[in-house]
Amino acid sequence: MQKLLASWESLCMSSGLLRFADINLRGIGQVMLQDNPLTGLLFLVAIGWGSYTAGVPHVALAGLLAVVVATLTAYWLHLDQASLNAGLYGYNGVLVGLALATFLAPGPLLWAYVVLGAAVSVVAMCGIATALKPWGVSALTFPFVVVTWLLLLATYGFSGLTATSLPTGSVVAPFQPYQASPLHLIDLTGGVLQSISQVFLKASGVAALILLIGLAVNSLAAAAFALAGAIIAVATAHLFGAESDLITGGLLGFSPVLTAITLGTVFYRPSGRVAVYTAVGTVFTVIAQSALNVALMPFAIPALTAPFVLVTWLFFLPRNWVESSSSTISDAVDASSP
Amino acid sequence: MQKLLASWESLCMSSGLLRFADINLRGIGQVMLQDNPLTGLLFLVAIGWGSYTAGVPHVALAGLLAVVVATLTAYWLHLDQASLNAGLYGYNGVLVGLALATFLAPGPLLWAYVVLGAAVSVVAMCGIATALKPWGVSALTFPFVVVTWLLLLATYGFSGLTATSLPTGSVVAPFQPYQASPLHLIDLTGGVLQSISQVFLKASGVAALILLIGLAVNSLAAAAFALAGAIIAVATAHLFGAESDLITGGLLGFSPVLTAITLGTVFYRPSGRVAVYTAVGTVFTVIAQSALNVALMPFAIPALTAPFVLVTWLFFLPRNWVESSSSTISDAVDASSP
Amino acid sequence: MQKLLASWESLCMSSGLLRFADINLRGIGQVMLQDNPLTGLLFLVAIGWGSYTAGVPHVALAGLLAVVVATLTAYWLHLDQASLNAGLYGYNGVLVGLALATFLAPGPLLWAYVVLGAAVSVVAMCGIATALKPWGVSALTFPFVVVTWLLLLATYGFSGLTATSLPTGSVVAPFQPYQASPLHLIDLTGGVLQSISQVFLKASGVAALILLIGLAVNSLAAAAFALAGAIIAVATAHLFGAESDLITGGLLGFSPVLTAITLGTVFYRPSGRVAVYTAVGTVFTVIAQSALNVALMPFAIPALTAPFVLVTWLFFLPRNWVESSSSTISDAVDASSP
Repeated sequence: MQKLLASWESLCMSSGLLRFADINLRGIGQVMLQDNPLTGLLFLVAIGWGSYTAGVPHVALAGLLAVVVATLTAYWLHLDQASLNAGLYGYNGVLVGLALATFLAPGPLLWAYVVLGAAVSVVAMCGIATALKPWGVSALTFPFVVVTWLLLLATYGFSGLTATSLPTGSVVAPFQPYQASPLHLIDLTGGVLQSISQVFLKASGVAALILLIGLAVNSLAAAAFALAGAIIAVATAHLFGAESDLITGGLLGFSPVLTAITLGTVFYRPSGRVAVYTAVGTVFTVIAQSALNVALMPFAIPALTAPFVLVTWLFFLPRNWVESSSSTISDAVDASSP
Repeated sequence: MQKLLASWESLCMSSGLLRFADINLRGIGQVMLQDNPLTGLLFLVAIGWGSYTAGVPHVALAGLLAVVVATLTAYWLHLDQASLNAGLYGYNGVLVGLALATFLAPGPLLWAYVVLGAAVSVVAMCGIATALKPWGVSALTFPFVVVTWLLLLATYGFSGLTATSLPTGSVVAPFQPYQASPLHLIDLTGGVLQSISQVFLKASGVAALILLIGLAVNSLAAAAFALAGAIIAVATAHLFGAESDLITGGLLGFSPVLTAITLGTVFYRPSGRVAVYTAVGTVFTVIAQSALNVALMPFAIPALTAPFVLVTWLFFLPRNWVESSSSTISDAVDASSP
Repeated sequence: MQKLLASWESLCMSSGLLRFADINLRGIGQVMLQDNPLTGLLFLVAIGWGSYTAGVPHVALAGLLAVVVATLTAYWLHLDQASLNAGLYGYNGVLVGLALATFLAPGPLLWAYVVLGAAVSVVAMCGIATALKPWGVSALTFPFVVVTWLLLLATYGFSGLTATSLPTGSVVAPFQPYQASPLHLIDLTGGVLQSISQVFLKASGVAALILLIGLAVNSLAAAAFALAGAIIAVATAHLFGAESDLITGGLLGFSPVLTAITLGTVFYRPSGRVAVYTAVGTVFTVIAQSALNVALMPFAIPALTAPFVLVTWLFFLPRNWVESSSSTISDAVDASSP
């Protein structure tokens, strides 16, 4: 594996075009925080498979176009070379492209929207990363969330763009307890896999397996945390009595999967405490996902990965405390006496 | 008083269990910003009284369980010892426990929810305090607000947890002017007292009196500001023509009470200007409370103490200017030329 | 021009009253970021004309009262003298006064509201500017937006204040494509002009021309960017199929106008790249305006200039990258690896 990547790297050195391809692939890999072109390639295959089998091949195309536009925008703005090379200006673009093509009807204005959204996602990435710098916290997929929310909301005021599969706006109503339908193990397995593929807005078990392979070629730990996160999410949602369709469709699990990967692999010194801490964060991401699904109902827009971003920021900020073995580090909460 | 506290402190020194009790009591006291175990004990009595007379003793139990879970979580995460000892990791937990048990129906999942919420409130406290550190601003009750909002919103997607007393979701509608019903002085007095007890989500005049005593044993100024804040809040709400039931139930006054205590006792050099400044902040908290009540209507969740947090942060940030006698301090607004 | 201003300045030196007038006029000028008393005077004429011809002279009066109250508040709080003299504590006040009088019915409580709102806008300005200092980003009109939103929302809970022209609260519904009505060039011209006058909440071509003159006397570039921003906004909104009435009434253009002025004139080294960057920001402000119009529908409050603030902050944060010719500046996105 290392040898393969090394020879690919030397090929990229000699060809501007290959380097460009390399950066875009890494951009796709960074959606799940992997800086590896092979991972990105496998993710792209999963996206393509999921789109093709769902009968919407143009969705994969929009994702691909968006990552290319994002990379070109980053070049044009002369952004930081190291971040650019690691694909950090591309992953929000991929997601913007996939989301817009998933939720809006095809047409020329959709493609204009994809190009605009991808370009602005780079500005948003750079702006938000700059804003978060004082805390050493990364932007995660927040640029994707903000830009996509604005673009989707705006379509309700534009006759040129129509939503095909956005939720219908309605005021929050108490949950109607459904007929008890004990989920079968097979459904739960489907829910676990689709929780993983829904990170790329796809409901496909095959795509999920390709994604897991893509994670594993770069980091076995990342693949393990993704799988564990999906299992925890499905179990939690089931315990609290969430709607079966949401669970088995993976729609309550994609944010927790990202939380598990991010919190699980970001700490320098793994420990039992870190594992439990990550698990609690993953459980709370399910709560946040359900909450934001409800909160966004009046606006008829999806929560996207906002629950992941919110909970991961919250759990990441106290990382120095959680990692240390004693409570003698910097007095982080000094100023917190109310 | 000082002697009593000193001998209690020496008892705590010698017993881990008493120290643990001490920390939890201080946590309850910190809901109104008092670092004093006796104050905490009196507050606990007020909570118990308010819950018992309202026929919901399990609410007080949930508050108690939550503060214990919060303290244990802080221990487990090895958080800052000084903050822990001052009860700063406990007050959000108490409020989370009280709020969840007040708004949701009893049942095993409620208790799971209380434990989860209390534990996450500590992470949120540590995370938000870290995030706010650059400004020297404290987290106030924002961790409580965020965690409780998410937990309550999520229940609309869970059949396992049902809301018993949450507002019904509806879109904002123009206020229907009610029949003129001049409030009697006795009603207003009730409103003032219940504004104080509603800080702990209780509508009880007796509880309010115990709370005032609890404040007074630690700080006469805090008790005075709490009372003055409640009076200003009731008068302001009445002047603008707010609904009588909201006023007399203390539901427009608990946030202003907290604003008055916080702004009133936080400045180092009291002065007429500081008093007027605090009064304006208290009046504006009534506006913010009414505004957030309206804004959260579509989501069918209560505003909790968010108005207090928002207005206090806003009024606290320019504190250096307000306190100084001349305008020659650091050029705080230098960068503000648009 | 320079000579005129110089002799005015020497007059102000000798008279406290003239200095006070000077500060208030600059405050009005700062609504469009111009630190020039003559510009402010012309803006005031435009406000007066727009209010008078619309049959609501008290709106202009409320704006004037509010700027005076804001300036007095800044004096009273001993805020930074340089910022005060440049009118930076006044522009949010003007806008608060204009907005409250535009959206609420006249009456004694309206005037109390204007005074309270203007005073709190100064606290908010100082607080938000302090909060944003670490990023070298200015508060823009965010203090106006926050304070006005809260004051307007609160009226739905107050029988003493009634909204005359606020949108009716309703849940987001898919946009109903209207009959194709190709806008005529004359309508578009009206839309461009009213996009400029709507910065002061006025729909008046004459007022727009006076405002352009006011900009030009202080900065030709500012006038050019305002006009270009308005044209871009109208064209973008038309392309995406926004409602004709919103376009020709300037209601999708006032935020983009402010974005264009701010981004266009803030960069030290103008270049083709900066111009394109500003244009993209202006286009995206139209998206954000449409999005926030939709998002605020359930709350029945207007978006005000929030889209301008949001997009300008986002596009302003990466300014160092955009201006530099190479990508070797400080590693601003270092910490952004997710």
